[in-house]
Amino acid sequence: KPPPCTDFDVAYFNSYAHVGIHEEMIKDRVRTDTYRAAIMQHQSYIAGKVVVDVGCGTGILSIFCAQAGAKRVYAVDASDIAVQANEVVKANNLSDTVIVLHGRVEDVEINEEVDVIISEWMGYMLLYESMLGSVICARDRWLKPGGLILPSNATLYMAPVTHPDRYSDSIDFWRNVYGIDMSAMLPLAKQCAFEEPSVETIAGENVLTWPHAVKHVDCYRVTLHELESVSTRYRFKSMMRAPLHGFAFWFDVEFNGPAISPASNHVTATFAESSNDQPMDYSQRKKRPNPNEALVLSTAPEDPPTHWQQTLIYFYEPIPVEQDQLIEGSVTLSQSKENPRFMNIHLEYTSGGRSFVKESVMR
Amino acid sequence: KPPPCTDFDVAYFNSYAHVGIHEEMIKDRVRTDTYRAAIMQHQSYIAGKVVVDVGCGTGILSIFCAQAGAKRVYAVDASDIAVQANEVVKANNLSDTVIVLHGRVEDVEINEEVDVIISEWMGYMLLYESMLGSVICARDRWLKPGGLILPSNATLYMAPVTHPDRYSDSIDFWRNVYGIDMSAMLPLAKQCAFEEPSVETIAGENVLTWPHAVKHVDCYRVTLHELESVSTRYRFKSMMRAPLHGFAFWFDVEFNGPAISPASNHVTATFAESSNDQPMDYSQRKKRPNPNEALVLSTAPEDPPTHWQQTLIYFYEPIPVEQDQLIEGSVTLSQSKENPRFMNIHLEYTSGGRSFVKESVMR
Repeated sequence: KPPPCTDFDVAYFNSYAHVGIHEEMIKDRVRTDTYRAAIMQHQSYIAGKVVVDVGCGTGILSIFCAQAGAKRVYAVDASDIAVQANEVVKANNLSDTVIVLHGRVEDVEINEEVDVIISEWMGYMLLYESMLGSVICARDRWLKPGGLILPSNATLYMAPVTHPDRYSDSIDFWRNVYGIDMSAMLPLAKQCAFEEPSVETIAGENVLTWPHAVKHVDCYRVTLHELESVSTRYRFKSMMRAPLHGFAFWFDVEFNGPAISPASNHVTATFAESSNDQPMDYSQRKKRPNPNEALVLSTAPEDPPTHWQQTLIYFYEPIPVEQDQLIEGSVTLSQSKENPRFMNIHLEYTSGGRSFVKESVMR
Repeated sequence: KPPPCTDFDVAYFNSYAHVGIHEEMIKDRVRTDTYRAAIMQHQSYIAGKVVVDVGCGTGILSIFCAQAGAKRVYAVDASDIAVQANEVVKANNLSDTVIVLHGRVEDVEINEEVDVIISEWMGYMLLYESMLGSVICARDRWLKPGGLILPSNATLYMAPVTHPDRYSDSIDFWRNVYGIDMSAMLPLAKQCAFEEPSVETIAGENVLTWPHAVKHVDCYRVTLHELESVSTRYRFKSMMRAPLHGFAFWFDVEFNGPAISPASNHVTATFAESSNDQPMDYSQRKKRPNPNEALVLSTAPEDPPTHWQQTLIYFYEPIPVEQDQLIEGSVTLSQSKENPRFMNIHLEYTSGGRSFVKESVMR
C-alpha cells in the first residue's frame, strides 16, 4: 500500500545520517528555541497524551515532548540517525516514554491513535525535500479528530530584491581582473552564478516591496495532491528606484492550538484568517499583531537569520525599476520528475514592458 | 603513449569548468599577486621567450606572461574553461601571442621547445589533485635545458596543533544540548567530524612546535614515481602544555631563478640549500632570511590566509602533552588506488607512551 522507497529516498535518508546536519539544525537557536517554546506553550494539551515526531533526527523534539509530560512519544525517522536517537533516549532513561521507530512514516506501525503530531519538516523554500508529505501521511494514518499538529500552518513568501553587491561580486568582477578585461567570461559567469536557486542570507534592505504569499499550508487540511504543483500570480509595486536582481523566497510557520471543529476529522485550524484565501491577506498578515499570540518561526530577511537563510532566484541581467513600477508575473513550483525530492521552479516576470521566463531546478 | 584519460580525470576536469572555482582562485590575492610578482621578477628572462602555462584555467597567468613580453605562451587546460580562456585572449587581442590548447598536457602537441613553464598546480596539502604530474610531463616533453619553472620548488609541512574550541564545538557540544545529555552521539559525532581531513583556517597560536618538512619538491628534478608515495618520520618536542588535537599540514612554494647547471638537462635549482636533504633544514628554512630573495607563496597558519587554508587531521581523542614532551611517528601520503586524484593518509603517532594509527582519505 505505501509508495515504494526509491533510490532518491534512500539518498535523502542517507544525507541525514551524518551528524553535521543535525548539529547545524540544533545550533540554529531560532529554530530549536521556537520549537521548544511551542511545545511548552501547549504543555497542558500535550501532558498525558500520545505524540508522534515525524523525522525525529537526534530525537530532541521528542525529548522536549517527554519533558512536557507526554504519555508516549513515537519518534520516527527513516535515516540511520534513528539509531543514535534511540541511544540518546536510553541514556536519558526515557525508553518507557519515547519509542524510536527506525523506518518511514509510511511503513512503521503505531497501534494507537495519536493526539499530537510534531515535525520539523520545512526545507529550503519551505517545500524543497518534500518532507511535508510524511506529515500528511502521519496525520491521515494516526491523528485523532481534534488533535494538534505543530506547526499548524506555514506560508511561503516571495518578494523582488535588489542586491548590487552580490551581482557585482560575481559578475562585474570579470570586467577588470588585475587590469585585464575578462568580460568574455560574463555569459558563463552568469550561468554558473544564477542558473540555480541560491541559498543565502539577505537583509531587509534588499527587499523592494511587501512580500506576496505564494502558498499557504494548513497542516490540518493540506493534501499531497495540492503539493505536486503550486502556482500563483503576483503583482508588486516597487517601493523604490533600484536595479531589480531577482526574487527572494522565505517562509514562516505558526504554532497554533489544536483543531476544534466538530464537523470534520482533519479540518479547521483555529487561525482566524485561514478561511480567507486571498493572497494579499496572508502577505500582509505578519505585519499585523497576531490575534492568537501563536508562536511564529520566521525565516524572513528582516528577522534573525536561520540555517534556512533565504532562497534567491537571480536574473541573468538586472532590470532597472522606478518607484511604483509594476513587477508582475507568475511562479510555479513543482516536484521534479527526475527526482521527487528536487523542485522545478518556473518563473515568469514582466516589468517595464518586457517579459521573461526563467526555469530552474533546486537539487 | 600517454596514459588514458580516465573517468576520474574527466570528473576532475569537469569540476574546473565551473566559473566559481576560478573566481575563488583569482580572488585569492595572496596567490594571484605572488604569481604576478614572480612573473614580473623574472621579466628579463621571460621577455622574448616561449612559455607553457600548465592548467591555465581562465588564462590569467598566460596573460601576465604575455604582458611580461613573452614571445609565445601555450595555455593548456583539459577543462572546458579553456574555451573561455580563448575568448578572453581574443578579446584582449593577444591571439598572436597566447595559444590556448584545450586538452591534456599529455595529449596536446607543441612543436617547439619552451623556455618557461608556469603552473599553479598546488592542491590542498600540496599534493592533493595530483596536478604536479602534468607539470612533470610538460617539463619532460618540452622544457629546454636551463629553462625556468615557476614555481621552482615546494615544501609540504606538518606540525602538531591544539584547537580546543574546534573540538568543543563539534564534540563537547553533545554533552549538554538544551539541558539534555546527548553524549550518546559522541562516537558518531567524532567519526563524522574527524574521519576525513578537514580544510580550515587555523592560527599560528594553534601550532605547538616548529613544523617538520614532510616533502620537498624540486620541480626540476621531481619524478612521477616519487610522488606515488611520500613517507617521512617526524619528531616534535611540544613547546607548551596543551591538549594535542591533531596535525596541521600546509605548504609553501618558491619562485627561484632558472636552472643553470650545464651538466644535466633538468637538474639544479639555484636554491642554495637544495643539496642538503635533511628535513630540519627545510623545516626551519623559512624562519631565516631568504638568501636568494626568491618570492615565496606561503599557506602557513601564521601567514595571511589563502583559499588553500590548512589541512587538519584530527584525532578522535585529544592527547594531553606537557612542555617538552616528545610527539613522534610517521606519515605516508599515497595516491588512492580507488581514484588517483584522491590521497590516502597513513598517520602513526606516539606520545606519552601510547601509540596510535589513523588512516584517512582525502576525496
